[in-house]
Amino acid sequence: MARMHPFDQAIDLRASALQDTPHEFSGVTHPAYANLIGPFGGTTSAQLLQCAMLHPERIGEPVALTVNFAAPVADGEIRFVARPVRTNRSTQHWIIEAHQAEGVVATATAVFAVRRQTWSHVEAVMPANVPAPDVVPRMSMNGMPAWPQRYDMRFVEGAFPAAFDEQEQAHSRSTLWVRDEPERVLDFASLAALSDSFFPRIYIRLRRRAMIGTVSLTTYFHADSPLLAQVGSRHVLGVAKALNYRHGYFDQTGELWSPEGQLLASTHQLVYFKD
Amino acid sequence: MARMHPFDQAIDLRASALQDTPHEFSGVTHPAYANLIGPFGGTTSAQLLQCAMLHPERIGEPVALTVNFAAPVADGEIRFVARPVRTNRSTQHWIIEAHQAEGVVATATAVFAVRRQTWSHVEAVMPANVPAPDVVPRMSMNGMPAWPQRYDMRFVEGAFPAAFDEQEQAHSRSTLWVRDEPERVLDFASLAALSDSFFPRIYIRLRRRAMIGTVSLTTYFHADSPLLAQVGSRHVLGVAKALNYRHGYFDQTGELWSPEGQLLASTHQLVYFKD
Repeated sequence: MARMHPFDQAIDLRASALQDTPHEFSGVTHPAYANLIGPFGGTTSAQLLQCAMLHPERIGEPVALTVNFAAPVADGEIRFVARPVRTNRSTQHWIIEAHQAEGVVATATAVFAVRRQTWSHVEAVMPANVPAPDVVPRMSMNGMPAWPQRYDMRFVEGAFPAAFDEQEQAHSRSTLWVRDEPERVLDFASLAALSDSFFPRIYIRLRRRAMIGTVSLTTYFHADSPLLAQVGSRHVLGVAKALNYRHGYFDQTGELWSPEGQLLASTHQLVYFKD
Repeated sequence: MARMHPFDQAIDLRASALQDTPHEFSGVTHPAYANLIGPFGGTTSAQLLQCAMLHPERIGEPVALTVNFAAPVADGEIRFVARPVRTNRSTQHWIIEAHQAEGVVATATAVFAVRRQTWSHVEAVMPANVPAPDVVPRMSMNGMPAWPQRYDMRFVEGAFPAAFDEQEQAHSRSTLWVRDEPERVLDFASLAALSDSFFPRIYIRLRRRAMIGTVSLTTYFHADSPLLAQVGSRHVLGVAKALNYRHGYFDQTGELWSPEGQLLASTHQLVYFKD
């Protein structure tokens, strides 16, 4: 039997066997997605989303996901509670909580929807003249925590600094090709994780060390299953930039594009920092 | 006694008098902020935020708010449940629900924080060469629902179409000066409401009628109390644009700027549409 992809292992949740806890799932942090301390937030986001994906009452596909990181996630088991708080004809609203021994470590809200064909248009502008992924060198992940090693990142602009030389840059914009490593066919869970794979903009901008931690992450899924299937396991184009840094918090915004120029997801996050 | 501002009336919540329901608040929709059907979503957002603001266990000030609109809000009473699910030394995480007779009508998550001075920088670019609010004509609100009449909007670009002439525009970008009408000193609640005051981008872009409804609204508060006090009751500069329209949903992103060029809030929403 083929070995499971580490991402599939990371989001492999177990539904509660007890009849009186139909909304409970359990999961575990995965060493392949470890961060400096605790797990990569993208994997935690994907686990939170996955609870709703696996829930027997789920309708439709995710269109919006907001994850709030309430406390450091400890390595080990996580208990999830996923409640469909409102189910309409074509939309469904979720509140999802992640618990560990000492309390709530993350919360999420999600909107799922049954989509229909409508007038469609991409108004955002995909970066032009970007070289193909096979001619852009892959970022070396030497010395990085485990999670970035689970991504193949090829920076066209705004690379993670090779050294923290404290040379402040004019902007924090990054453009990169990115995919799971090893290759894996894109799905909603991996798109949710990819949305948290943009390095904190303050590192790109200031090129100096800072304590950081995402406090809130919102992703809008523009892609539906057929579009994800078209992308398959190829690289997607990521774009990220910061908007504002002020008094301990900054926000950054990102886009994930299919090679053919469809916007798969737009994503926004607020990050705590201590300089 | 001076008459209360209609916005203060709209967000005037009553804490539960019962000892066993410390997290409950009740409010009521306000006719001055009525939309075509039910209340303006911005007022509902402000009420949800206000629950946390009024809660005796609250620490700090809001830095992130996500509101999901789960079902149409009926005119009348709303029961709110606001739970501080995690309180750390300098951050606090909330889950807030709005209930009416038939069930949950909205949910919110919020992050509050005690801020500290750090390196600060505005990376987003405020529109340049914008004429002062007193030389830009105020938008006529004739024939509009009640809520836009509670705002003084002065469009520099991307005005609400005078007629739905179905002339598709090249983009959906709007730039406008906006403040409460009558004037009111800016606070977190009104900033939350302002974040939902950008008209749906599809009207600007397509200039045709469409059924729309915001499903999820996220606001990052870059302003703290001292900065809000500096703005006072003056106009703030709003900028909004859409990113992607696809299969029944589009997202739009907005910024609210102080006259002096501080980014007060960045805001993002996902909107259902039927064309």
